[in-house]
Amino acid sequence: MTDHNTMNDVENAMEGGEQSPELTQLYADFEAKNLSPLWTQLGEVMTDVPRSKAVPFVWRWNELLPLAARSGDLVPVGRGGERRAIALANPGLNGHPYATPTIWAAIQYLGPHETAPEHRHAQNAFRFVVEGEGVWTVVNGDPVAMRRGDFLLTPGWNFHGHHNQTDQPMAWVDGLDVPLADHLDVGFFEYGTERVTDYSTPSVSRAERLWANPGIRPLSGLDSHVNSPIAAYRWEYTDRALREQLLLEEEGFPATVEQGHAGIRFTNPTNGGDVMSTLRAEFHRLRAGAQTPSRREVGSSVWQVFEGRGEMVVADHTWLLEKGDLVVVPSWEPWELRAETELDLFRFSDAPVIERLNFDRTYVAGRER
Amino acid sequence: MTDHNTMNDVENAMEGGEQSPELTQLYADFEAKNLSPLWTQLGEVMTDVPRSKAVPFVWRWNELLPLAARSGDLVPVGRGGERRAIALANPGLNGHPYATPTIWAAIQYLGPHETAPEHRHAQNAFRFVVEGEGVWTVVNGDPVAMRRGDFLLTPGWNFHGHHNQTDQPMAWVDGLDVPLADHLDVGFFEYGTERVTDYSTPSVSRAERLWANPGIRPLSGLDSHVNSPIAAYRWEYTDRALREQLLLEEEGFPATVEQGHAGIRFTNPTNGGDVMSTLRAEFHRLRAGAQTPSRREVGSSVWQVFEGRGEMVVADHTWLLEKGDLVVVPSWEPWELRAETELDLFRFSDAPVIERLNFDRTYVAGRER
Amino acid sequence: MTDHNTMNDVENAMEGGEQSPELTQLYADFEAKNLSPLWTQLGEVMTDVPRSKAVPFVWRWNELLPLAARSGDLVPVGRGGERRAIALANPGLNGHPYATPTIWAAIQYLGPHETAPEHRHAQNAFRFVVEGEGVWTVVNGDPVAMRRGDFLLTPGWNFHGHHNQTDQPMAWVDGLDVPLADHLDVGFFEYGTERVTDYSTPSVSRAERLWANPGIRPLSGLDSHVNSPIAAYRWEYTDRALREQLLLEEEGFPATVEQGHAGIRFTNPTNGGDVMSTLRAEFHRLRAGAQTPSRREVGSSVWQVFEGRGEMVVADHTWLLEKGDLVVVPSWEPWELRAETELDLFRFSDAPVIERLNFDRTYVAGRER
Amino acid sequence: MTDHNTMNDVENAMEGGEQSPELTQLYADFEAKNLSPLWTQLGEVMTDVPRSKAVPFVWRWNELLPLAARSGDLVPVGRGGERRAIALANPGLNGHPYATPTIWAAIQYLGPHETAPEHRHAQNAFRFVVEGEGVWTVVNGDPVAMRRGDFLLTPGWNFHGHHNQTDQPMAWVDGLDVPLADHLDVGFFEYGTERVTDYSTPSVSRAERLWANPGIRPLSGLDSHVNSPIAAYRWEYTDRALREQLLLEEEGFPATVEQGHAGIRFTNPTNGGDVMSTLRAEFHRLRAGAQTPSRREVGSSVWQVFEGRGEMVVADHTWLLEKGDLVVVPSWEPWELRAETELDLFRFSDAPVIERLNFDRTYVAGRER
Repeated sequence: MTDHNTMNDVENAMEGGEQSPELTQLYADFEAKNLSPLWTQLGEVMTDVPRSKAVPFVWRWNELLPLAARSGDLVPVGRGGERRAIALANPGLNGHPYATPTIWAAIQYLGPHETAPEHRHAQNAFRFVVEGEGVWTVVNGDPVAMRRGDFLLTPGWNFHGHHNQTDQPMAWVDGLDVPLADHLDVGFFEYGTERVTDYSTPSVSRAERLWANPGIRPLSGLDSHVNSPIAAYRWEYTDRALREQLLLEEEGFPATVEQGHAGIRFTNPTNGGDVMSTLRAEFHRLRAGAQTPSRREVGSSVWQVFEGRGEMVVADHTWLLEKGDLVVVPSWEPWELRAETELDLFRFSDAPVIERLNFDRTYVAGRER
Repeated sequence: MTDHNTMNDVENAMEGGEQSPELTQLYADFEAKNLSPLWTQLGEVMTDVPRSKAVPFVWRWNELLPLAARSGDLVPVGRGGERRAIALANPGLNGHPYATPTIWAAIQYLGPHETAPEHRHAQNAFRFVVEGEGVWTVVNGDPVAMRRGDFLLTPGWNFHGHHNQTDQPMAWVDGLDVPLADHLDVGFFEYGTERVTDYSTPSVSRAERLWANPGIRPLSGLDSHVNSPIAAYRWEYTDRALREQLLLEEEGFPATVEQGHAGIRFTNPTNGGDVMSTLRAEFHRLRAGAQTPSRREVGSSVWQVFEGRGEMVVADHTWLLEKGDLVVVPSWEPWELRAETELDLFRFSDAPVIERLNFDRTYVAGRER
Repeated sequence: MTDHNTMNDVENAMEGGEQSPELTQLYADFEAKNLSPLWTQLGEVMTDVPRSKAVPFVWRWNELLPLAARSGDLVPVGRGGERRAIALANPGLNGHPYATPTIWAAIQYLGPHETAPEHRHAQNAFRFVVEGEGVWTVVNGDPVAMRRGDFLLTPGWNFHGHHNQTDQPMAWVDGLDVPLADHLDVGFFEYGTERVTDYSTPSVSRAERLWANPGIRPLSGLDSHVNSPIAAYRWEYTDRALREQLLLEEEGFPATVEQGHAGIRFTNPTNGGDVMSTLRAEFHRLRAGAQTPSRREVGSSVWQVFEGRGEMVVADHTWLLEKGDLVVVPSWEPWELRAETELDLFRFSDAPVIERLNFDRTYVAGRER
Repeated sequence: MTDHNTMNDVENAMEGGEQSPELTQLYADFEAKNLSPLWTQLGEVMTDVPRSKAVPFVWRWNELLPLAARSGDLVPVGRGGERRAIALANPGLNGHPYATPTIWAAIQYLGPHETAPEHRHAQNAFRFVVEGEGVWTVVNGDPVAMRRGDFLLTPGWNFHGHHNQTDQPMAWVDGLDVPLADHLDVGFFEYGTERVTDYSTPSVSRAERLWANPGIRPLSGLDSHVNSPIAAYRWEYTDRALREQLLLEEEGFPATVEQGHAGIRFTNPTNGGDVMSTLRAEFHRLRAGAQTPSRREVGSSVWQVFEGRGEMVVADHTWLLEKGDLVVVPSWEPWELRAETELDLFRFSDAPVIERLNFDRTYVAGRER
């Protein structure tokens, strides 16, 4: 767990590491008084570089979806359990239902005509739809249609519930800052109605009608908005933005992250920053054959393939990924992507947390920074 | 020019206002030494409320356009004169070609197949198109189509030129911070090529392809942007945003500025603030029959009717306005709007200057603030 | 661990809570695939209000100091162990050497003429001196004297070591964001020289000479400073600021937090915010007999009595505190202070983290907010 | 007034510059309709570099002070005239009582036991004391002693009056943003009491007691402060800061602006920015024999020698300056300083305006930027 050796000089000075009775007694007295010496564990609490307990891992969509469907048959959704959501539990995190130390990621499943009741919590949440449609999430009374490719927000302390209007089940990915909120002890939770407050099914939410116009702000919305007021970032716009970047690159203009690699960040239009205080969301598109340099970043990410096929290398793993597959990249683990076909990936991360606390660092192989 | 009387006590103390020879000599000595006493002119340099030298005024589009057309016949456009622009000269501003103390507003006219050569300046500029199409403005090499209803940016120090691709002339409105820059002594100017650097005529600019996606930011554009990177705010989006606000109001949801009055601000998507450091731009739509309360604001504005008919009251003027008419509202003059038909208005102002310097105040009749 | 009952409806729907074989199999399959259902543990991951694993606790200075002195006899300080620091280990945190989930607090002890070698880490650190003097902490080559009442900074990634110039030992309190950095996986660590780089003993550091002038900024220091450039906040100024607040209160002017309760925050003079991105530091002074209303705050704090005697109530604990005693207040636990004598307290907390992530809430008994 | 020739091509195209009758008629029609063509005056409204109407100028303290004393004999101070202030009227500004287009600078004179009555205005003001003491300025009811070397604030909309407690007259320099406020039409003015509201004479103001502690903020003052809450920046701290910079330079550490040239900026401790939204204030100290490189800056400044002797070069002027002398440097005029003795200078400028509007540029001879 550590690169630098702890206690060399200190141990040497202590007669080959054998503890004197006085030292043994001292350590016992420490423990009795709820104290703990730094010098015996420095290397554990302060590593040379970040060494996450979380491990790189992959979850396969073609395994997740059938499990979600089985829970659809066996487990009702309703008040108390609230959501039929199945969390990615990182094998390094001791059984906690957490993808990374800061990120909760789950597949949520709603059967035909089911309703997930309304509640609200301080934790920030979003949904991303890798396939399907027919569910509306009702956020503070505003019904928001969920469709393939859409990225949908439920910032902290907004009441929200979901209902499926169709005869087909629908599954999607939830992302929250639950592990962060749990660690920081910042969570509040409140039940709302057991149904959703509005069962209407408009194709566009009121929030979008007010806010999803490029570079345009309603005069009724000039106050500061900690979180983005855009309820849904529609696939149509995401796709167009990515496509245009690659076209501009072909036409000879700077537009992409690097050759063959387009990327966008979802932002809060009222300040240009991340959509929510704790979660960043991005979309990436690689041309067939493109690959990225190896990168290390402080902070953890979850990637989901939206379309296409390619390899992702994370530390010493190399995974062939297909639609819906989810990968966790812990802090400071090197990663790279290699697209076999054109490859679309959704990514979310705790980068706003890392940056707001000034812990951000990046290392890109072959580039100085 | 002042509400509070200057020199009462002081004058009384000076023997009925008659100057002693010693005082006369003192004032002469002041003048000789480039000095000036405050006590004789306090009421002029410090008024109770803002008292602009600029006056409320209206320019009629049906008079402006023929004059512009005549200049199109008589005056060539090219290097040296640079632009066939005719500025609104506020009658209060002593013959300066300025609409207000901070704002330059002009009608610019480009004949068939003409080119206005490239240059750049520290002054910020925009164009607004009340009718017509067929001109491209080329901003730092990016050709931007100009069409009815579009609001187009040329932030400071970007090279820009225009060319008319058609057999018809085209006229539009230019807005700049020239009087402010002149007063602050901040202007820089540089000639570019005598032609435009790119005569291609795409319907959408590269800047829009990268930036005009709602809530979406390219990963290649994460650096800070003092001014908006969106080259053109298209009428399609402005119109939709205004229409949706009025629809939401009908559906019973808060969305408008006030009953029957929709409004949007054009913003810099990278920070949610104004499009440029010195100029604010907004669009307003009033339902037929709607009217606004009387407002006073610190800072000056120019309004242009885009469509419809209505009255504007400014101080003791009441003007019936029609398409293209331009009105200047000086600082702190009360104004209100009354829509006869549905009424669309473009507005620009120096509000970012006033707010950044913390001089903003607003008074709305019937509301405290 | 939770106020709201989980699974009521869901369990009822599942035949009295007895799991069907299918459900048992589903849960087993979840586990095999590193998945975890939300509905069985919602109440644990999302509590109604913050429920910290950390518990309110007190450490007594008259117990800490002798233990530190014993370690001074038994444990050498030097490369590897680096520091003779003994951490407060909150009994609720499973043996981790952490005062709260975000804060490391320790007593550090340096014997006569000892040197704690230089190193640097991404974690932010400070020292607070409750008694004694004679040690210099050398921060990036700048020797900073440590004296009673001083609050001293070592922001992340600055090399630092300490040396004791005297024939007496010295002990002080260290505060760091180690648990936060550990959880977020953001830590970097690097050894420096085994000695300190400058053994000179000026009474004032170079950083103070440049930066500790009220409202004054060196023209050579106009760049942005994420962390405060003031190396030492001297007791002289803290004491004076607190004293003046109480005098102003006596004179009838608003100056204190509330009647009889003066308080200051240590700030970064380049932006007026907290001294470091992750740690807030404050000083409080209560008049003899004063008491504070009960408060709950999101985020955790550590308090140390600097001088005087009084009671602190935290949740259902009431402790009589004396000089040097340290108390932990976990997130959302109610606390209040009652001063027997004039009571001076140093406080540090993770409030900058909570606020930057927009999780802050406060509840003060008897006041709305 | 312009470097680039206007109308070359255009004039050539118009038959040797002789206007046709049609063009003459067009220009007459423009005038009748309050319009003004750009092409005939582009070089005046848009210069290659800033060309201020204000000119470099010097006012001599040994001339100012006797004139102020004579006005003390002849002109009473009281309601109406309000202040016995004599403004520097830049010879380039057409008789306006303005030092530069944005800055008002005056010598104010208060006789023994006189009172200048209270008023307030939106304009921001400060006082700087080059010699003398015995006057208190009462700012929003807080009496602030004025002493040699002090820099004192009266931000916009604070009531303020002055009274002289002694048997000696006192004179000082006032700086305000009056010309800027006049141009922007943002001024408000209101009379207060004809006396000052508090005739007590504490040596330190309440504002200082609360706020002038280095890096320390009262918990009762956490709200945002647009302007600095420090009423007086005392000479003691300014002098010490400058002295320490030169000592640090001698000791081999970076601290000064450049060799032999120390400098500080007065700042708002709540945000690290300028003391007020529109005015920057700095103090400079040059070692005897030191000189600065030639600099051009966008924006205008006023300098006053506080102590010492030296030359200032502004454009093609070279002035030998002594204590109290005031120099105006208009925008973009090159300036440099050469100290004969150790030379202390106070400087104020409109730099916050220029920077907030993103018009700032600097050119330093011999350095790129």
